[in-house]
Amino acid sequence: MSAIRHALNTKRDDDFAAWYQEVIAAADMAEESGVRGCMIIKPWGYGIWERMQRLLDDRIKAAGVQNAYFPLFIPLKNFEREAEHVDGFAKEMAVVTHHRLIADGEGGLIPDPEAKLEEPLVVRPTSETIIGDAMSRWIQSWRDLPLRLNQWANVVRWEMRTRMFLRTSEFLWQEGHSAHATAEEAQEETMMALEMYRAFAEEDVALPVIAGEKPENERFPGAVETWSIEAMMQDGKALQAGTSHYLGTNFAHAANIKYQSDAGRETLAHTVSWGVSTRMVGGLIMVHGDDDGLRVPPALAPFQVVILPMLRDKPEDEALLAYCDTLRAAISGQSALGEPVRVLLDNRPGKAAAKRWDWVRKGAPVIIEVGGRDMENGVVSLLRRDALWNTESGKPAFQNPDRDLCAQTIPTILADMQNGLLVEARERREANIRRDVSDIDTLAEHFSREAKYPGWVEVQWAKPTGEALEKVVERLKELRLTLRNVPMHAPPADGPCIFTGEPAVERVFVARAY
Amino acid sequence: MSAIRHALNTKRDDDFAAWYQEVIAAADMAEESGVRGCMIIKPWGYGIWERMQRLLDDRIKAAGVQNAYFPLFIPLKNFEREAEHVDGFAKEMAVVTHHRLIADGEGGLIPDPEAKLEEPLVVRPTSETIIGDAMSRWIQSWRDLPLRLNQWANVVRWEMRTRMFLRTSEFLWQEGHSAHATAEEAQEETMMALEMYRAFAEEDVALPVIAGEKPENERFPGAVETWSIEAMMQDGKALQAGTSHYLGTNFAHAANIKYQSDAGRETLAHTVSWGVSTRMVGGLIMVHGDDDGLRVPPALAPFQVVILPMLRDKPEDEALLAYCDTLRAAISGQSALGEPVRVLLDNRPGKAAAKRWDWVRKGAPVIIEVGGRDMENGVVSLLRRDALWNTESGKPAFQNPDRDLCAQTIPTILADMQNGLLVEARERREANIRRDVSDIDTLAEHFSREAKYPGWVEVQWAKPTGEALEKVVERLKELRLTLRNVPMHAPPADGPCIFTGEPAVERVFVARAY
Repeated sequence: MSAIRHALNTKRDDDFAAWYQEVIAAADMAEESGVRGCMIIKPWGYGIWERMQRLLDDRIKAAGVQNAYFPLFIPLKNFEREAEHVDGFAKEMAVVTHHRLIADGEGGLIPDPEAKLEEPLVVRPTSETIIGDAMSRWIQSWRDLPLRLNQWANVVRWEMRTRMFLRTSEFLWQEGHSAHATAEEAQEETMMALEMYRAFAEEDVALPVIAGEKPENERFPGAVETWSIEAMMQDGKALQAGTSHYLGTNFAHAANIKYQSDAGRETLAHTVSWGVSTRMVGGLIMVHGDDDGLRVPPALAPFQVVILPMLRDKPEDEALLAYCDTLRAAISGQSALGEPVRVLLDNRPGKAAAKRWDWVRKGAPVIIEVGGRDMENGVVSLLRRDALWNTESGKPAFQNPDRDLCAQTIPTILADMQNGLLVEARERREANIRRDVSDIDTLAEHFSREAKYPGWVEVQWAKPTGEALEKVVERLKELRLTLRNVPMHAPPADGPCIFTGEPAVERVFVARAY
Repeated sequence: MSAIRHALNTKRDDDFAAWYQEVIAAADMAEESGVRGCMIIKPWGYGIWERMQRLLDDRIKAAGVQNAYFPLFIPLKNFEREAEHVDGFAKEMAVVTHHRLIADGEGGLIPDPEAKLEEPLVVRPTSETIIGDAMSRWIQSWRDLPLRLNQWANVVRWEMRTRMFLRTSEFLWQEGHSAHATAEEAQEETMMALEMYRAFAEEDVALPVIAGEKPENERFPGAVETWSIEAMMQDGKALQAGTSHYLGTNFAHAANIKYQSDAGRETLAHTVSWGVSTRMVGGLIMVHGDDDGLRVPPALAPFQVVILPMLRDKPEDEALLAYCDTLRAAISGQSALGEPVRVLLDNRPGKAAAKRWDWVRKGAPVIIEVGGRDMENGVVSLLRRDALWNTESGKPAFQNPDRDLCAQTIPTILADMQNGLLVEARERREANIRRDVSDIDTLAEHFSREAKYPGWVEVQWAKPTGEALEKVVERLKELRLTLRNVPMHAPPADGPCIFTGEPAVERVFVARAY
């Protein structure tokens, strides 16, 4: 068995954090902008986000939720009303105080003291308070309910330590917001969004997730319940990939969202919010990337198939390009995963082999190279990104299908790869969840042992609240651990609480996290 | 002939500005947010914008331009470098100076003096300077050119007088940015974007536009050439609906965008930028709206067909809904204007007639009502939004096609309406352009006469520059007039300049404008 030369310098096992940065650079997805905590999302990274947007937006529309757009700026008074909410966000918001610049007399610019805003404006960190304002105007009677909205927007949270896609001061997301007549309906909506996220993550992003409720200490500021989907990265850490919040009447009270009930009584509405962000792109990298770069699930790949003609700057190139273009047309006429196949004929100048590695690092699902000999033989050289290497020879594992049959096999390859990535990630996750830890010393020992990637531990607990919970969180913090969520559909508790020894009431995941 | 009762209180002819506001409210498109100059785009208005985005984005992608995303915040130093650019924008930018709020001790919040930014950040009014920064890093050799990017984003310009969709402090847009090796290539790209906008406006928005170059005084701050598409509103005013700028090497110089030429010489790149915004929605309203509300061109309608069952809260409703659902399925199986027909079965409670007027005001292209008698007869009652009234009877002009044939006629109706709206607007525009004015007194007289909507005047001029142009602009300003653009494809000048009497060199449009 030959040694395989991988396309990246850093291997996941050697330094996962450095590997993550290298993938982002090598796949040309994003870069630091020089503006504190803000990144530039480059075309390949943005193309993946656009695909996520499209597929999630289709699900949002199918659920009957309507898109709208609310202001970027939020007046201070909106935050003053919901104390818990502002406590949660006040430490990290960008504040606009002036609306004009003037020359400072030394060639520079300064905010014009004459143009100071009477009331500073906050750049939205999330939009509950401003959308709540609108809802209070739009809702009068029970007939106006439910009111179900979504917006695709940028938001800003002033982060001290940032990391591309995972934690940036500005990020892109969608935020769903709804108001309902009853707690039951609002809770149902909370679950609707959670299930939509689970299906999106698993079916579109090929990201296996655990859906469950966050413990009290991990709730969204001002929420009554926060639910999440949690995914395991290849370093065993957890990533919260989407959240859905039942807000009770807290925000309705603050924003005065009231309706006349059927019986004519003025009643507070129950509100819900839910969000998924560009963080999901970070999750995709950390779950599907390998030592050769990114692997993009076919449903999200801006191009699913890239054709590389081996051009030689000779007259024969013309026939080769024609051969490739026939192939391109045949493939783009196919349908995979419910949509026409997205195929690129990459005829930029440059060596095909160099371009091949570019596309390997970017994670294009299928790369097809075509040289003069392929053309003579009526075949192509096809490389699957999920089966890149011939492990015996240590060389790229090209297949050589007949050109005319090749196009027809593409839909099967893409569907197989989409499913394969999910299965692979799920098996890895299950292999890295431990469920046999029932005392805190074993937990500490598990996470302190030599193994770099100890994965998650599902423990049983008595669901402490208030101060008792704070003590648990404190103890876990010493071990650099966090409570992730209480999984739905888990077997009932049947042992003692790992923290208090009392009879446990449910299971909860404990893990290191992003 | 009976009097027709229109669906709005205000008629276009009585008070165009009030009519515009009424349409926006009556079609439930947008509303003031209470945040200075920022509007809320409600689902119907946002749905139209989403359709514009989709169709324009398809054109952008087809042109080979790639989407990306750049930071919301721009450091002051970026503005300090391009003097003319900052002069053009400095008066109206939102400035972030703090990154945290604290309690003021009286129940309110204030920016935390401890969290003052060392360097204030500007909320982007446009992104030439920050994208230029990135380009200077990404471009080294001629092989990196052309670099062609686009971003869909929100931008903020602190406007004193705002008007929904037409002029708001925050607005949504796309901004294309490219760098090229030569002036010729950059100018070609400028024209590519202009032609893309013309085709988008005319083919998708059904908005006839005049493409041409803006006079010097109307250029984008820092541009060498600014080109625009100009549309005539129903009050005869002009609306600049999209712009494309050749920036020469001005921004490349400021941001240091240089490349190694083929011969190895360090050379400044030539840059281009182009943008279309939510302003286009305002143009759509003012061109296609009528005294019954909005008329949405079918290509942009979130729903092209709305089916209204005349429910009676009786057991027969079930059969009626089934009948309507069969119709819905048949219509949504049709394809119109290159896409599956978007159809809504509106089975919300409420009287069909009341809902009909809702959809008329919103401008849904086709409304289909179905009552018990229609069902018995196997027909439907179909109303075209572009032929709403039987002018003899003064009643809605229902047609009664066979249900099974109805679906097949929808694509023809929609295509006909899409084209009809364009033809109608183009004829109105041509009827309101005057080309026989050759002296300034006649011009003044034309625009001061009784007629409320004097339209545009195409005059010939000697293309004055500098102070001579300033004088012309000043004189026009007294008449509340502006120079719009110098139309492409116009016949050559053959008379004297209306302003100076010298031989004219070209034609230019003069009009009141938004």
